[in-house]
Amino acid sequence: MTPEEFRRHGYQAIDWIADYLARPERYPVLAQVKPGELTDALPAAGPERGEPMDAIMADFERLIVPAVTHWNHPGFMAYFAISASEPGILGELLATALNLNGMLWKSSPVVTELEQVTLRWLRKWTALPEDWFGCIYDTASVGSMHAIAAARQAADPQCRTRGASQGLVVYTSEQAHSSIEKGAIAVGIGQDFVRKIPVDAEFRMIPDALAAAIERDLAAGLRPCCACATVGTTSTTSVDPVPQIADLCQRHGIWLHVDAAYAGSLMVAPEFRWAFAGCDRADSLVTNPHKWFMTPVDCSVFYTRRPDVLRAAFSLIPDYLTSAADPRAVNLMDYGVPLGRRFRALKLWFVMRSFGREGIANLLRAQVQLAQDLAREVDADPRFERTAPTPFSVVCLRYKGTDDENRRIQDHVNSTGEIFISGTVLNGRFTLRLAIGNRTTKREHVERAWALIREGAERL
Amino acid sequence: MTPEEFRRHGYQAIDWIADYLARPERYPVLAQVKPGELTDALPAAGPERGEPMDAIMADFERLIVPAVTHWNHPGFMAYFAISASEPGILGELLATALNLNGMLWKSSPVVTELEQVTLRWLRKWTALPEDWFGCIYDTASVGSMHAIAAARQAADPQCRTRGASQGLVVYTSEQAHSSIEKGAIAVGIGQDFVRKIPVDAEFRMIPDALAAAIERDLAAGLRPCCACATVGTTSTTSVDPVPQIADLCQRHGIWLHVDAAYAGSLMVAPEFRWAFAGCDRADSLVTNPHKWFMTPVDCSVFYTRRPDVLRAAFSLIPDYLTSAADPRAVNLMDYGVPLGRRFRALKLWFVMRSFGREGIANLLRAQVQLAQDLAREVDADPRFERTAPTPFSVVCLRYKGTDDENRRIQDHVNSTGEIFISGTVLNGRFTLRLAIGNRTTKREHVERAWALIREGAERL
Repeated sequence: MTPEEFRRHGYQAIDWIADYLARPERYPVLAQVKPGELTDALPAAGPERGEPMDAIMADFERLIVPAVTHWNHPGFMAYFAISASEPGILGELLATALNLNGMLWKSSPVVTELEQVTLRWLRKWTALPEDWFGCIYDTASVGSMHAIAAARQAADPQCRTRGASQGLVVYTSEQAHSSIEKGAIAVGIGQDFVRKIPVDAEFRMIPDALAAAIERDLAAGLRPCCACATVGTTSTTSVDPVPQIADLCQRHGIWLHVDAAYAGSLMVAPEFRWAFAGCDRADSLVTNPHKWFMTPVDCSVFYTRRPDVLRAAFSLIPDYLTSAADPRAVNLMDYGVPLGRRFRALKLWFVMRSFGREGIANLLRAQVQLAQDLAREVDADPRFERTAPTPFSVVCLRYKGTDDENRRIQDHVNSTGEIFISGTVLNGRFTLRLAIGNRTTKREHVERAWALIREGAERL
Repeated sequence: MTPEEFRRHGYQAIDWIADYLARPERYPVLAQVKPGELTDALPAAGPERGEPMDAIMADFERLIVPAVTHWNHPGFMAYFAISASEPGILGELLATALNLNGMLWKSSPVVTELEQVTLRWLRKWTALPEDWFGCIYDTASVGSMHAIAAARQAADPQCRTRGASQGLVVYTSEQAHSSIEKGAIAVGIGQDFVRKIPVDAEFRMIPDALAAAIERDLAAGLRPCCACATVGTTSTTSVDPVPQIADLCQRHGIWLHVDAAYAGSLMVAPEFRWAFAGCDRADSLVTNPHKWFMTPVDCSVFYTRRPDVLRAAFSLIPDYLTSAADPRAVNLMDYGVPLGRRFRALKLWFVMRSFGREGIANLLRAQVQLAQDLAREVDADPRFERTAPTPFSVVCLRYKGTDDENRRIQDHVNSTGEIFISGTVLNGRFTLRLAIGNRTTKREHVERAWALIREGAERL
């Protein structure tokens, strides 16, 4: 492709995106395709000879876009809503063209240094301890796996050479994200050694139950190794009592990991810092700028106060990657499994500069307000009940009927293509779940979601 | 940002990239900054209020670019050279704006289906078995970790619940990538149970030594679990004898993983398929389109003939992620640690369609030819020697002098800013390593590299 052709197709892609971001509602939020439909529409083999970009762009619009469920849509209220903002898109575009790999400081200094600089900025904005070390992974699942691996290393320094010894125990709550259990499986601890501590009526880990579980395991000769608290659980965004969990971790020498993948972004707004009390005592914490911080996927931030432990777990320097030692030339490959490291910090830097702390805080505040207002509307309608408190921007509610009726209401909402909501199970009952968080979601979209839910109930 | 502002800044970014790709040589390939220099040039804290995009773009050019070591530069011959091609950049740009997460089929069908379609196309182009299952990870390190976890699961199905049992053994060669050892550490097998099998004079794993190691471990009551063969090792691009290794794996029920992260792309050219003999008998294989397949980072392909084992190791379906069962609606979250999955297949689809199989094969052929020609020049100069065979596009050579002299030659080359080469240690001696692979590298650049090496030797 000549520079002129690239310019032409690049403008074409930018134009498509500008139109898309201006009016994502032109598309149904939920893809209207059946399993296999896109597969069947595409050739069974790739082309032997290259095809013109105009044909590829045409197929992008004709075949690819209809199979998209649009996360960047104001009606997207399923899972945790995310946002690719314009500054984030531009930062990622430039990073893609540079195509760097920051495995070593030397392999492209800007990757390491901008990652360290943006994560320092983020520590300041969120009032996290200044001396924490940070790096970026693709997902919080991978970040939490590294936290559990570090906890394993701290509890059993010989595990690196001898392998994981049996009987290390990981604690988390019944409401924790599945990635904690998966991380424990991955690093060889095993599901039998993951304790899912019960939660209270507001879905928060019960510290006394954690204390009792630790005592039972100690009495059985097991070794408590890691506790994962969550600030903003996936189903209900409940907040575990981190200060009490931190006390127990401190007493027993247990690694405290905090999963704040969703809610962590709220730390930029001081009035929400109550939810993060005790997080400064954690050994590690994950938060995802690619969730609620206007940054395109993927960008998951991992912080630890004990990078030496992570390094002891993972550093391996082969001959072809030796480099001169310099205390300011950090080699991020030493801190985890992935050797390659793409330039994810550039989009985060674009986002932080373009919005500023206040800009992001104000966006999040407005979305929390939308959720609070919806919560009040639900409470005022006798046919419905909220099934969990609404501390942030996720509202859990159900029609006061059967699970099946609630599933039919969900199907009704999602079948419109205007709004996409998810569901979960709380106290054994199916519940609807509206996660507000896409940057373009406004009052009218939340009101429309609520109208569709009520309409679904009326049509039962 | 309004659509018009986005359009303006988007065009500006596209213009910058068009100019960059047209003449990357305007920049020194190796960043001319000292450790900490960029950090010191940036503010200690992020801005309270948002800043204009013009200021951010200006700082991108003024501060970010000078700290870049340019992987997308024709003089980049260090590590394994990579290429962000124009079609790949455009595909990634559109994927960034869509901002999808393909954890479930339902969460955005296009992510799952296009990933499956492009990896089917790739299996056809590379003559790998049609019935293999594929998915995309960020890095080969993470892919190989999953292979080792699957091997662990196959050897010890209870490890998922009870944790990794001691005594599982992983085999690889002295020349294997460090990610194999790191993967064994991560999943709890431990370095003491990683056997680095000796290599022959051409840096290929010695099958008899592997057989002997397996016998020793069996006699000691250990459980051989995984063998990692490499086609295209990192230091020399040597090719392990996969057919013989596969025989041993079959005899002993050992999971065979093939690391073809670099060389795998060559399978699209039939005349290089000799190097991949026996790979069709592997249980898993990784190859990186983000290395030598014109695709921007990150895009690492993981294939396995036994997806059921990977699924048995990792599938966990929480309440908030249940979805209707449909055999054509694969949920990729079931096959590994990361839950989030960005839309990496779009750039791969753009690349495959835009270049075609033949287009990519011809690019790779030309680069292998450049390396073969350089190898001949080195052989013809009595002051130098090649330190390894040159099967593909990497040339290992040294000045017939001391290690220190060779390091000074490397420093001379790299100090020019025109060419960036790396080094490694072979048979205990430091050696220079030229990895040809960036798409823009032409004969003149390789000739310039060789001229600078000779100049460095003359100046000793």
